[in-house]
Amino acid sequence: MTVEPFDTVDLIRTKRSGDALGTDQIDWLVDAYTRGYVGDEQMAALAMAIFLNGMERREIRDLTLAMIASGETMSFDALGKTTVDKHSTGGVGDKITLPLAPLVASFGVAVPQLSGRGLGHTGGTLDKLESIPGWQASLSNERMRAILADVGAVVCAAGSGLAPADKKLYALRDITGTVECIPLIASSIMSKKIAEGTGALVLDVKFGSGAFLQDIEQSRLLARTMVELGQDAGVATSALLTDMNVPLGLTIGNALEVRESVEVLAGGGPSDVVELTVALAAEMLRLAGLPDADPAAALADGRAMDTWRRMIAAQGGDPSAALPVAREQHVVTAPRSGALVHQEALPFGVAAWRLGAGRARAQDPVQAGAGIELHAKPGDPVVQGQPLFTLHTDEPARFARALDAVEGAWTIGDDAVVARPIVAERVG
Amino acid sequence: MTVEPFDTVDLIRTKRSGDALGTDQIDWLVDAYTRGYVGDEQMAALAMAIFLNGMERREIRDLTLAMIASGETMSFDALGKTTVDKHSTGGVGDKITLPLAPLVASFGVAVPQLSGRGLGHTGGTLDKLESIPGWQASLSNERMRAILADVGAVVCAAGSGLAPADKKLYALRDITGTVECIPLIASSIMSKKIAEGTGALVLDVKFGSGAFLQDIEQSRLLARTMVELGQDAGVATSALLTDMNVPLGLTIGNALEVRESVEVLAGGGPSDVVELTVALAAEMLRLAGLPDADPAAALADGRAMDTWRRMIAAQGGDPSAALPVAREQHVVTAPRSGALVHQEALPFGVAAWRLGAGRARAQDPVQAGAGIELHAKPGDPVVQGQPLFTLHTDEPARFARALDAVEGAWTIGDDAVVARPIVAERVG
Repeated sequence: MTVEPFDTVDLIRTKRSGDALGTDQIDWLVDAYTRGYVGDEQMAALAMAIFLNGMERREIRDLTLAMIASGETMSFDALGKTTVDKHSTGGVGDKITLPLAPLVASFGVAVPQLSGRGLGHTGGTLDKLESIPGWQASLSNERMRAILADVGAVVCAAGSGLAPADKKLYALRDITGTVECIPLIASSIMSKKIAEGTGALVLDVKFGSGAFLQDIEQSRLLARTMVELGQDAGVATSALLTDMNVPLGLTIGNALEVRESVEVLAGGGPSDVVELTVALAAEMLRLAGLPDADPAAALADGRAMDTWRRMIAAQGGDPSAALPVAREQHVVTAPRSGALVHQEALPFGVAAWRLGAGRARAQDPVQAGAGIELHAKPGDPVVQGQPLFTLHTDEPARFARALDAVEGAWTIGDDAVVARPIVAERVG
Repeated sequence: MTVEPFDTVDLIRTKRSGDALGTDQIDWLVDAYTRGYVGDEQMAALAMAIFLNGMERREIRDLTLAMIASGETMSFDALGKTTVDKHSTGGVGDKITLPLAPLVASFGVAVPQLSGRGLGHTGGTLDKLESIPGWQASLSNERMRAILADVGAVVCAAGSGLAPADKKLYALRDITGTVECIPLIASSIMSKKIAEGTGALVLDVKFGSGAFLQDIEQSRLLARTMVELGQDAGVATSALLTDMNVPLGLTIGNALEVRESVEVLAGGGPSDVVELTVALAAEMLRLAGLPDADPAAALADGRAMDTWRRMIAAQGGDPSAALPVAREQHVVTAPRSGALVHQEALPFGVAAWRLGAGRARAQDPVQAGAGIELHAKPGDPVVQGQPLFTLHTDEPARFARALDAVEGAWTIGDDAVVARPIVAERVG
C-alpha cells in the first residue's frame, strides 16, 4: 500500500481558508487526481474554493506544470525551425486560425495548431476545416512533423495523451459551475499549449458579448495571467485583447467561414478579419524573430494562399473543391433605412448553433453548410428591404428558434456609428 | 423522460455569486441529489460555495425541511406524553445523555434519544451503553414506542430511513472539507431531530478545544441558527453554550463513562457532570411545561436511578452486571507539587481514541474498557508523585501513542486557577 504524503481534506481546507498550496502539494494533488485517488467530489470542492479564493502566480504555474507532467509532451526541436502557436479564447465567427496558420508559415516559421471541435455557441476550427471535401483532422505524430517540415503549417486534432489531468478537470468544471475562473482557465489553456512543445505563443483573448469572459477587465487579467505563465515556463508569450461584441467577419458557420478565410487568403475578405489576421501574424512573427516581416504583403501576393493549398492537400483535402452549401436559406431584410448600429455576437452565435453549425453534446454531428451570412456590419448604412443577414440550414424546422435567438440582437438607427477597432490592446 | 425544472449548474452559480436559492430550487436540489440526478461532484461544489458564501435563515429552513422530506418521519403524538429530546454537538467525556434521559423521564416526560456511534475523538452514546452486558442498541419502532410508554426514556440507534439526504450529504462533506459550516451543520442536526418527531429540543452546543467548533462566537452562531430553525419548524428549541476546553467529568471511554454516569444517578459523581446534567434537565423540563421541577432532587432521592435501571433492562441490559475493565493500566504521576492549571480536552480525547475507546472508520470495533481516568481537574492541588491520570487499554502497545497525544496537554503551576463554569450562556 502506498502511503500518501498529503491528506486531501487538509489541502481543500487550505484553499478554503484562502491560503496558498505548496508546490509539492499541487504536484501530488494533480497526480493523485489523475490516478483517481483524489475523487471528483473532492476536486470539485477544491475548484470552487479556488474559484472564490483565487490562486497566487506561483500556484498557477505549479498547477500548470503539474498538469503538463500528467501526460505526454511534444517537442519540435528536431524540426530545425522556429515554432510559434496561436490560441484564441473563442468567439463568434472566429475563423482566424484558417488564414493565419498558412500566412505565418509562408515566412518559414513552423505553425503547429493543435485544435479542437466546437461545443456550444463557439465553433471549432476542426469542424470548419472538415467541411472541405477529403480533409482529415487526425494525424500521427510522424505525419504531423512531416507536414510541418514540408509545408510549415498544420492544423490537426490534439492527441489524447497531452495533459490528461486538464481534460479530466475541465470536464469536471463544466458540470460544477467552476468554469469562469481565471487561474483555472489560464492553467487549462497553457498546460495544453506548453505540452504541445511550441517555442512561442500568441494569445487572442476576447472580450465582449460573444466571448468567454464578457468584461474587458477580466479578459485583461486572464491575458496577463497567461502571459506570465508562459514566461514562467520559458515560452515566449504575448496576447492581444480583441473585441468580440460583434461577430468576426461576415460569416458564422463551418463551410461559410472556410469560404471567407479563402477570400482573405486571396487578398480580399472583410476588413476586421484581415486586420486581426495581420495583427496576430505580426505578433507571431515578432516572437519568431522576424519583426520586419510584412504579413499583409504575403496575403496580397498569394504566398499565404499557396501555403494554404499545400496545407489542405497534405491532410487529404481538395482546396479547389466546391464547399458544401446548406439546403435551405432564409433572408432577413431591413425593416427601415438608416444605419446598422448594433449586432450582438452572442445571439448570432447561438442562432448559428441552432441552425446546425454547432453541437450541444460532444458526440453530436454538425452541419457543414449551416450558419449565418451577414450582409451588413455595425456602421454600415442600410436601405429598407435590403438583406441584413441570411440563415442557412439543411433543416428548415430550425429557422424559428434561430430567429428567436437574434430577436432584439440587432438595431437600425439614424446615425452611423464608428466601428470599434478589433484589437484593443497588447499584453506581454 | 422526466424534464427537470432546474439546471444544476445554474443553481451552483447562484450560490457561487452569493445569491439566495429559492424554496422550489432547494426542494428540487435535495430531491434530485437523493435520487442521484445531481451528482456528488456537483453537490460538493455547491457545499463549498455555501461554506464560503453562507445561507440566509429562509434557505437554511428550506434545506432542513427538504432533507426531512427526503425520508420517513416519526411521530409520538399517540403516546399521550410530552416528548423532549437533547442533542449535543459532541465533546470529550460527554456522557450526559446517560444520566439525563432517565432523569428527565422520571418526571413523566418521554425522552426518545436516537443516537449514533462515535467516530474520531468524540465517543458515541451507543458505544458507551453497549459496554453494559446484554444491552442492545437496535429496536423496532414498536418496541421503542412501548419502552417510551412504559419507562419514558429510550436511547437507541436511529433508523436508516430518517433524512437520507442528510446522511448522503454528511458523508460527502466529510471528504470534501465542508464540515465546519454553520448552515450545513445546523440543517444536518435539525433535519434528523425534527424527523424524529420530538415536541421540544434542547441543544448542548459546545465550544473550546475538544468541541466541533472551538470558538465561542461560532458556537453561539450555530446555537442561534438551530434555535431559529427549530422555531421555524414548530419545535420548541433552546440551547446551552457549554465549555469543552476541559474533558467533562473524570472519565473518557465507554465503560468508564457508564460507571461515572451511574455515580451521578446515585447522587454522586463529578461536579461538572452533575451541574451540566441538572442544567440540561431543567431546560428540557421547562420546555416540557414543568418549570418548577427539581432535577437535583430526583438524582438525590433515587428516582432517576430507578428509571435508568428500567431503561437499561428494557433493552436487554443488566444494570447490576459488572462493567468491563481493560486488561492493562498505565498511571501518569505528578512530576512536582502545585496545582493543575491546564488539562486540554482534545489531546485527552485523542489519547482515549488511540487507547481503543474510539474508532477511525465506521466499521471498526471499540474496546469497552479502554479510555482515561482523570485523578485531578484544573483547579485541584496536586502533590509530587500522586496519580494524575490512568490510561486503560486491552493492548499495551497503544500506550506510547496515547502518551504522545497528551504530551504538553496538561500543566502544573504554582497558583490554583478557578475552574470555569460549565454553562456559559443560554440561547433561546
